[in-house]
Amino acid sequence: MDAEVKKLLLDTKKFVDKKIKLKGWIRNNRSQKEFGFIDLNDGTAFESIQIVYEDKALENFKEVAKFNVGSAISVEGKLVLTPNMKQPFEVKAETILLKGGSLEDYPIQPKRHSREFLRENAHFRSRTNLFNAVFRVRSVVSFAIHRFFQERNFIYLHAPLITANDAEGAGELFQVSTLDSEKPEKDFFNDFFGKKTNLTVTGQLQAEAFALAFSKVYTFGPTFRAEKSNTPRHASEFWMIEPEVAFFDLKDNMELAEEMIKFIIDDLFKNCQSELEFFNKFVEKGLIEKLKNVQTKTFIRITYKKALEILKKHNEKFTIKAAEGNDLATEHEKFLTKHFGGPVFVTDWPKDLKAFYMRLNDDDETVAAMDLLVPLAGELIGGSQREERLDYLEKRMEEMNISDKDLWWYKDLRKYGGNKHSGFGLGLERMIMYVTGVDNIRDVIPFPRTPKHCEF
Amino acid sequence: MDAEVKKLLLDTKKFVDKKIKLKGWIRNNRSQKEFGFIDLNDGTAFESIQIVYEDKALENFKEVAKFNVGSAISVEGKLVLTPNMKQPFEVKAETILLKGGSLEDYPIQPKRHSREFLRENAHFRSRTNLFNAVFRVRSVVSFAIHRFFQERNFIYLHAPLITANDAEGAGELFQVSTLDSEKPEKDFFNDFFGKKTNLTVTGQLQAEAFALAFSKVYTFGPTFRAEKSNTPRHASEFWMIEPEVAFFDLKDNMELAEEMIKFIIDDLFKNCQSELEFFNKFVEKGLIEKLKNVQTKTFIRITYKKALEILKKHNEKFTIKAAEGNDLATEHEKFLTKHFGGPVFVTDWPKDLKAFYMRLNDDDETVAAMDLLVPLAGELIGGSQREERLDYLEKRMEEMNISDKDLWWYKDLRKYGGNKHSGFGLGLERMIMYVTGVDNIRDVIPFPRTPKHCEF
Repeated sequence: MDAEVKKLLLDTKKFVDKKIKLKGWIRNNRSQKEFGFIDLNDGTAFESIQIVYEDKALENFKEVAKFNVGSAISVEGKLVLTPNMKQPFEVKAETILLKGGSLEDYPIQPKRHSREFLRENAHFRSRTNLFNAVFRVRSVVSFAIHRFFQERNFIYLHAPLITANDAEGAGELFQVSTLDSEKPEKDFFNDFFGKKTNLTVTGQLQAEAFALAFSKVYTFGPTFRAEKSNTPRHASEFWMIEPEVAFFDLKDNMELAEEMIKFIIDDLFKNCQSELEFFNKFVEKGLIEKLKNVQTKTFIRITYKKALEILKKHNEKFTIKAAEGNDLATEHEKFLTKHFGGPVFVTDWPKDLKAFYMRLNDDDETVAAMDLLVPLAGELIGGSQREERLDYLEKRMEEMNISDKDLWWYKDLRKYGGNKHSGFGLGLERMIMYVTGVDNIRDVIPFPRTPKHCEF
Repeated sequence: MDAEVKKLLLDTKKFVDKKIKLKGWIRNNRSQKEFGFIDLNDGTAFESIQIVYEDKALENFKEVAKFNVGSAISVEGKLVLTPNMKQPFEVKAETILLKGGSLEDYPIQPKRHSREFLRENAHFRSRTNLFNAVFRVRSVVSFAIHRFFQERNFIYLHAPLITANDAEGAGELFQVSTLDSEKPEKDFFNDFFGKKTNLTVTGQLQAEAFALAFSKVYTFGPTFRAEKSNTPRHASEFWMIEPEVAFFDLKDNMELAEEMIKFIIDDLFKNCQSELEFFNKFVEKGLIEKLKNVQTKTFIRITYKKALEILKKHNEKFTIKAAEGNDLATEHEKFLTKHFGGPVFVTDWPKDLKAFYMRLNDDDETVAAMDLLVPLAGELIGGSQREERLDYLEKRMEEMNISDKDLWWYKDLRKYGGNKHSGFGLGLERMIMYVTGVDNIRDVIPFPRTPKHCEF
């Protein structure tokens, strides 16, 4: 019967001593005079399956013995339990057919390759253990996030990618245009949209409009930053999840974020046990313990002010001294999560450190913002209660020099049934780095885009 | 207890005669001297709930009676069954509080608005019955698609959005750049990626790389076309689902597509009954019957050649006469689905009508392509078996003048374990239009982008 590796692993009993058919790629082929072993991987699971083939059983033994690594083959044979061996079963081949050969200079040989080399071969790197595991985890986590929100009655919203807004006032935008780049243009009247447009940095503003109609919504889509930072944590194109909920205050917002993070990790332990064990062994020692700790701990909630008090007491340990009014440095974030032994929400930040749409607190100095810091990785989530009071919003936009030309509709939301609402953003890549231990964002994105790099 | 409309509807019994708390927006407020009715919608369901309020029960009766349409309120009260009325229950209010007022000139009044007017008010249109239903269906269908593939062990792949490839050779691309538009540039060396880049028209090529590692993958993400067509079926930004499967031929591909379409429709009948009834009554008469027909019929499979034979017999009916070598016109597609009384796959198209990557058939003239035509809507899916033979692929790229500068890796896939594989693309918007009966693509995208239109 037709099988795939995932099914054989999940339901081995059903296939024992049965004739099965598999298709996949050769990871390794070790042949002796009269028999040989193929490690077959079909990508449906992390594990490869051992295929045993013998001269006496195969008509084409000599050819099979020469099949190159990377070749696509089909195998018919019998699944046999191997209770005394490392792997629980193997397949004794009756037929092995070449479905797609592989040249001898195939870049992915059964040995260790550097991550840089694999990035240059991103079209093949999913055929290694590491990237097979990383991109399956990316898929499983993405689906878990959808399930989390859909089970709770959230509406999935596709926020627009091309926009005329600059929501964060960040400035580092990719322009989108159909104008001829060889001709200078001051005016965008002749451009495709008749105005200057760029790739979005967030779907939040549009999510707010939907939240004020559906109560609970989330986006899950790509966002873009044209920052020229060549760091292991920056990519020009990445995916964000942005829930937005009407009638939610900052406290509700934190509860939702905590519940979501725990849901994702629970799901990984259920569906990606082999992958987590692999990461724990070869990528980040202690990963599983770190994740179990997050799973079981109630996340700490402290204000920025309180965080600063703690940090200032230990300023002798820091290169950058903690000081009122400054953003937290990476070393401060790490200190706080270590100090509390788990994830920490830092809330109520000085308004000048945060975006224009965050709700001003009664102290007139801080806003109802929250950052979730997690051990080792730092900031995983950023969110806030939104400013629902039109006069406050307008004042803040003016102070921060945010043009309201393209935001008339955003202000409208405050005039007609606008009410308390909150939301947050989770960077998918940051989450994947966190749960796999992989420390370069280029290695958790199928085909990453960074300054000067747009291959594949 | 805290409730939401969706929960009240799904599990009414649990709430009968209980004191509940609801939050939402006023759709309508009709007050008399001593009592009044509010239609409350919280967006968690299609339905609004009737709130009955009385002077003798409310301290603030006079204010409540004046609450404007669109206002956000919270209501505490008792759920009471109303067996003799249209709606199965109502809520007798004990408290009603204003959570966010609405000015009198609120654009969404309880009357019919034109779709054009609502497009200009896209930030509010989800607060109407039509768009509440459309965007909930969009969310439910999106999740059903994820479930369909995840349950079948597919890996969800995020294909890149910014790319240097032009996969379809279509030419109508949005450029992505950080260059100063006021200065002419011939050379893209100084641009962000050091070369000319654009927004992707398909994730298929990258999905092929992943399929040849994971066997079964799918993309679900935005794609872009800079076509200046102002038609009800074209948008500049839309979402595509593109499964790609190794070892699949065209026949397997059609089976997968048929199974997916039926899965989506089954799911809609389970989860969006009220919405479908609304569309059936107010948007497309006969919609439910049309969908049930698709659900139960085995899709017809015919070749392009056979389709032409049939069409040519009826050429007197067509404005554009059917002729060998030409693409099918909309009237031909409609005729075929009517002729067969259901969905039809048309396969094996003349190679010159299709993209460079489709597999050449043995006749040297047609390619292993498939289009799925459905009654009333025309083409819903396009797919093919891919050309896995390097020499054929190179010949075709040369004939069609496709530059291989940025496609070296795509050719590599044919050298190292390349094998038979197939896939297809489903335009999400086209599917939503099909299952809702809404006939303008601008009305199934939250914030649509079309030529000269990039608002919100």
